Amino acid sequence: MTVSEVLRTQRIELPSWAFGNSGTRFKVFAQAGVPRDPYEKIADAAQVHRCTGVAPSVALHIPWDKVADYTDLAAAAKDDGIELGTINANVFQDDDYRLGSVCNPDPRVRRKALDHLLECVDVMDATGSRDLKLWFADGTNYPGQDSIRARQDRLAEALHAVYERLGGHQRLILEYKLFEPAFYATDVPDWGTAYAHCLRLGERAKVCVDTGHHAPGTNIEFIVSFLLRERKLGAFDFNSRFYADDDLMVGAADPFQLFRILLEVRLGGGFEPDAGIAFMLDQCHNIEPKIPGQIRSVMNVQEATAKALLVDVETLTAAQLAGDVLGANAVVMDAYNTDVRPLLADLRAEQGLAPDPMAAYAASGHAERIVAERIGGTQAGWGA
Amino acid sequence: MTVSEVLRTQRIELPSWAFGNSGTRFKVFAQAGVPRDPYEKIADAAQVHRCTGVAPSVALHIPWDKVADYTDLAAAAKDDGIELGTINANVFQDDDYRLGSVCNPDPRVRRKALDHLLECVDVMDATGSRDLKLWFADGTNYPGQDSIRARQDRLAEALHAVYERLGGHQRLILEYKLFEPAFYATDVPDWGTAYAHCLRLGERAKVCVDTGHHAPGTNIEFIVSFLLRERKLGAFDFNSRFYADDDLMVGAADPFQLFRILLEVRLGGGFEPDAGIAFMLDQCHNIEPKIPGQIRSVMNVQEATAKALLVDVETLTAAQLAGDVLGANAVVMDAYNTDVRPLLADLRAEQGLAPDPMAAYAASGHAERIVAERIGGTQAGWGA
Amino acid sequence: MTVSEVLRTQRIELPSWAFGNSGTRFKVFAQAGVPRDPYEKIADAAQVHRCTGVAPSVALHIPWDKVADYTDLAAAAKDDGIELGTINANVFQDDDYRLGSVCNPDPRVRRKALDHLLECVDVMDATGSRDLKLWFADGTNYPGQDSIRARQDRLAEALHAVYERLGGHQRLILEYKLFEPAFYATDVPDWGTAYAHCLRLGERAKVCVDTGHHAPGTNIEFIVSFLLRERKLGAFDFNSRFYADDDLMVGAADPFQLFRILLEVRLGGGFEPDAGIAFMLDQCHNIEPKIPGQIRSVMNVQEATAKALLVDVETLTAAQLAGDVLGANAVVMDAYNTDVRPLLADLRAEQGLAPDPMAAYAASGHAERIVAERIGGTQAGWGA
Amino acid sequence: MTVSEVLRTQRIELPSWAFGNSGTRFKVFAQAGVPRDPYEKIADAAQVHRCTGVAPSVALHIPWDKVADYTDLAAAAKDDGIELGTINANVFQDDDYRLGSVCNPDPRVRRKALDHLLECVDVMDATGSRDLKLWFADGTNYPGQDSIRARQDRLAEALHAVYERLGGHQRLILEYKLFEPAFYATDVPDWGTAYAHCLRLGERAKVCVDTGHHAPGTNIEFIVSFLLRERKLGAFDFNSRFYADDDLMVGAADPFQLFRILLEVRLGGGFEPDAGIAFMLDQCHNIEPKIPGQIRSVMNVQEATAKALLVDVETLTAAQLAGDVLGANAVVMDAYNTDVRPLLADLRAEQGLAPDPMAAYAASGHAERIVAERIGGTQAGWGA
Repeated sequence: MTVSEVLRTQRIELPSWAFGNSGTRFKVFAQAGVPRDPYEKIADAAQVHRCTGVAPSVALHIPWDKVADYTDLAAAAKDDGIELGTINANVFQDDDYRLGSVCNPDPRVRRKALDHLLECVDVMDATGSRDLKLWFADGTNYPGQDSIRARQDRLAEALHAVYERLGGHQRLILEYKLFEPAFYATDVPDWGTAYAHCLRLGERAKVCVDTGHHAPGTNIEFIVSFLLRERKLGAFDFNSRFYADDDLMVGAADPFQLFRILLEVRLGGGFEPDAGIAFMLDQCHNIEPKIPGQIRSVMNVQEATAKALLVDVETLTAAQLAGDVLGANAVVMDAYNTDVRPLLADLRAEQGLAPDPMAAYAASGHAERIVAERIGGTQAGWGA
Repeated sequence: MTVSEVLRTQRIELPSWAFGNSGTRFKVFAQAGVPRDPYEKIADAAQVHRCTGVAPSVALHIPWDKVADYTDLAAAAKDDGIELGTINANVFQDDDYRLGSVCNPDPRVRRKALDHLLECVDVMDATGSRDLKLWFADGTNYPGQDSIRARQDRLAEALHAVYERLGGHQRLILEYKLFEPAFYATDVPDWGTAYAHCLRLGERAKVCVDTGHHAPGTNIEFIVSFLLRERKLGAFDFNSRFYADDDLMVGAADPFQLFRILLEVRLGGGFEPDAGIAFMLDQCHNIEPKIPGQIRSVMNVQEATAKALLVDVETLTAAQLAGDVLGANAVVMDAYNTDVRPLLADLRAEQGLAPDPMAAYAASGHAERIVAERIGGTQAGWGA
Repeated sequence: MTVSEVLRTQRIELPSWAFGNSGTRFKVFAQAGVPRDPYEKIADAAQVHRCTGVAPSVALHIPWDKVADYTDLAAAAKDDGIELGTINANVFQDDDYRLGSVCNPDPRVRRKALDHLLECVDVMDATGSRDLKLWFADGTNYPGQDSIRARQDRLAEALHAVYERLGGHQRLILEYKLFEPAFYATDVPDWGTAYAHCLRLGERAKVCVDTGHHAPGTNIEFIVSFLLRERKLGAFDFNSRFYADDDLMVGAADPFQLFRILLEVRLGGGFEPDAGIAFMLDQCHNIEPKIPGQIRSVMNVQEATAKALLVDVETLTAAQLAGDVLGANAVVMDAYNTDVRPLLADLRAEQGLAPDPMAAYAASGHAERIVAERIGGTQAGWGA
Repeated sequence: MTVSEVLRTQRIELPSWAFGNSGTRFKVFAQAGVPRDPYEKIADAAQVHRCTGVAPSVALHIPWDKVADYTDLAAAAKDDGIELGTINANVFQDDDYRLGSVCNPDPRVRRKALDHLLECVDVMDATGSRDLKLWFADGTNYPGQDSIRARQDRLAEALHAVYERLGGHQRLILEYKLFEPAFYATDVPDWGTAYAHCLRLGERAKVCVDTGHHAPGTNIEFIVSFLLRERKLGAFDFNSRFYADDDLMVGAADPFQLFRILLEVRLGGGFEPDAGIAFMLDQCHNIEPKIPGQIRSVMNVQEATAKALLVDVETLTAAQLAGDVLGANAVVMDAYNTDVRPLLADLRAEQGLAPDPMAAYAASGHAERIVAERIGGTQAGWGA
């Protein structure tokens, strides 16, 4: 595929929770105009898609986005020009989960958590979603607090039960995270753990790479390349971080790293239509406005993708095989140093979009409208 | 001073907020029996002191511990056998502080923050507290968001105003922290920054070392040694961490590090009565019960202190000067590998305390009492 | 098995290279009396075993320990009371390996590296060694320098060729390392990569955990527990580190971590006779004397093992299942806080050894002897 | 100053040791054509200047660059179009320095080290150099090995003796480094330590920021901004790193960070002619050819500088004061995303240089010439 073809077909999924309030343990700062229910989150996501043209689906978080009728929610999304996407299970925001969910030493709590996961598959059936994304806050804070091994056994049991329940076109996407909220041992702390579990589950179990979930010094693009080689990469949760799981706008902290990751996606065939990689944002907008934060993030992924596509792979490979260290590196840097904004502006114009999505949003009046209309109510979500 | 003399005179201050609920951005798990007001926090702190004998004061956090009459609060503490200690200012839990407090680009918000700091000195006047502890959540999340330098200017201005307001026996203790809740740049990120500001302020401005606030790989005992040499170490906030500012029980993650820190305190004269070092806990008990969590932490500091005092400094120095690497290290390890629990049990018995504070607490009935009595109400605090 | 039984049967392998000079890129400091050939390294290792009683084998590094006749070397070891152990291949100290060994873009270099690996199996046949330990310095320093994926293909090819060559009782042990000497991407950077390759190779391919080879914040005991559960843990390379691959004496930087690792070994059955876990030191003694450095390290592993064996697992499990966070942690800490040195001194006395191995070495006159005798010659090894 | 004016006056000093062989503790790979003496290093540096036009001086490392007659060396440099610059003292490559140089417990070794530092000032007198750069490999590997505090006292004493010896126009530049080659405690581990010592020394003692010498997660541009505000920033040692002190080509690992650092230099007035900031490369070219590695690095600094100069500070400040997080960040990102290579090519053309320095070097024949001519001899330097 050509650069333009890939860019035209690229799809970036938005997380419904990015539109709600979020924060740190120190404070959740309230913003005016945030959605009061899942329908309003979808309206905001649709607005991002209208401005960017490449964000036609929105991921849900259950129970934050629980509604009485998911068919109706899907219809509302469709009316607004987008679709419902990945279903994210949440088994961490209940007092019962103090010592974990599916890894909890108490079988009653494990059963409750598993029931929620199975309920999420019901939601998928209703929404037509392909992917169930599982991230577990499970882990321990103190050495000895629980058996590391017993928790793995419990985890494996729950994953198998969920995998068995999936329909033939549905996938289980297992996410890993180094630390937080567990501080001593996390039950799925790294890609190796997620990979090993997915391997036992079967073909439709894949690993999700969240770009903020690694130890300092980890080479994320290596993991991406390795998982693509093993056909076990299922999805990205994009965001960026300077230190921990900061959940900043993707590309804000290390745009060169984002480019390198997307270059490995390209080199590993991950942009091919049948590769089945879900590209999703997973971010918090704690202090900046949320919809423009999403638009900017979508643009950052697009720009990094464009640069990755500009790499002259033939010349690169020749230099690599010749052992030309500086020459090979220069091929990659040439693409990275290119200003791809004009190219993307042209592409948008071709598709009938405004060349500058941020300006388009500012001109849309949406920001003022939601501040005026969305009075009262509370929103459920991240950090709420 | 002998080992026993130091251990007998050691004082560890408790943080009022350790008795309230706390958590991560993902969830604050509620515990039964948590205090509903500052008086109940003081009752819990007094219980810790009754069991350990070395925790006779409690630090307040304003406005979490705001009361109408601080003289009355101090009297209540005295009745329960303890005192009010350090006053901690809180300028991060208000929507106004989204972009910072004393470093905020908006002069109105800066004024509001400064007024709160000055109000805290009023509280100190009422409680008779010596120390004002300042930790600022100020910083930025994105490159360019604000001027790093202008924020330093604003910080310096606020610190000077507060320092001017202090009475002659009062001290300003400036705390640093690498990251969180600011993710890109924190306005007082390291000891060097705190030290430089304190140097300009004057004699009664000192640095607080929070053991969880450093980058990975930082040698904390070096900082302690250096600040003692410069006479600029004012206080410790003890806790422990595996990765970030985990706020686990001190000594839980790396007991050898705690020992090394306390050894440098000893070697730098920090246990001398006139050294003026405040030893304080600053922790969260997210999943474990709070009062036993505090008792265990006090014991961990005591045990590490005892080991530090057992180091044979004369032999150590001789080995160091002889360039005997293994010999010098062995002197330190010998002390660390000693089981000091019998020594501390004896010391408690001598002072009329139960030898095992944890057992003493379990036997006290306090845990059952507070669960039964403290029904209704809400508590203000950390993560609340 | 009882505590004493395990301690009596514990075996810790010594690395021949620990007895030679070593250093950093800045300087290799020469020490008097270092071995001039493999036979003298074996003599030093035998001395460590005479003092400790639990270090009856020595690992070789080829070509550093290349000799004309390995049968003769094995006989010399046997005469001195020890055995030859693991064979470590070295494919990083030749100008040809500038861009890697088995992952090099140049097929000629790959062939040369593979030939060396196969030659190491020949050595194993001669020495009767069970394990071939493979650590590759392969990787890249700059983005784009070489194809991450092609290097994995080359690695897999070489590993398969070596695995095919092994005799039925021989094992391939694959070691991972985060960084150094490659700075951008390492070809086997983490346990997940090593595990995935071993899985494809077969039953007798196992992972080696070097305690110094992880990113900051990594929970090593989790990896140990996970690999034991997967039956893929083959060996340990013990050492310790404050920041990077510092290669300090094991237990010197974080004795609590070493204890936790050995506790997971115990809980996962890794001390069982048929578990097949090789416990080995892999250290540098850059500034301290080498033989005492090894003795001290052996003792550190013994002490941490003894503490791990003292953990009351029944009480621990009960507390874990009851969700008693502090209780479970206390069981672990009680064992850790115990002074096990008297227990180990008794055990040595029982076995006819001096109770204090360091004093025994000092009294042996070996140190003075080697300084006097080993004049001239050069030693091959680490950093040499 | 305008963008072009700053770029035209920018000066980047080259390190003589970058032209010699270098490596890791695992291997120093030899390259053909490396200099055999300081004169040949200067010839290589001059070549870099001929291609880039902004690298007119070369820093020396004593004793690596020891010559009989420094006036003659300076004349040779002048003949080749460049100057001798900063003098770097080396007190780490002698067996005497096993336990440190100026911090060594042995007064004889301290004296030897100090004598070398004073000798370096003699060299400065001969070469006309302004700056003495001091980096100490001093530190300890094991807790207890030496007194942290006594080592600070010894350090302070040596620094004072050197500072006293300086001529009125000469400066002492103190460099800090987190770890390596010392692994437990480094005697000047962070900017705070260097700053505190410089403060006591006086006006002409300044701090050097080496971009590779920080703990993970450290915000380097904050340090740069802070030191500029304190008028204590003296120099940069540019290089880049993914994990530790990797010493890769500056800008290779995180070009966005390099840009942010240079933006703070600009905002703090560090490009002003009288700011006195020395911009220097300090790198190793372990696997890539050395002269092109230096050229590429010079270009990377130029490009990042150009981007930093393109930031619209007026708009930025307005957005910052308005609390417009996304707007302010966008101003910075707009400059960063600009392709400045055409601008720099024009600037070179204007100055009579080839627009592409890498191509100019390839065309110069220098590479072939040195390989042919420089046969035999050994070079002294990094890792040698």
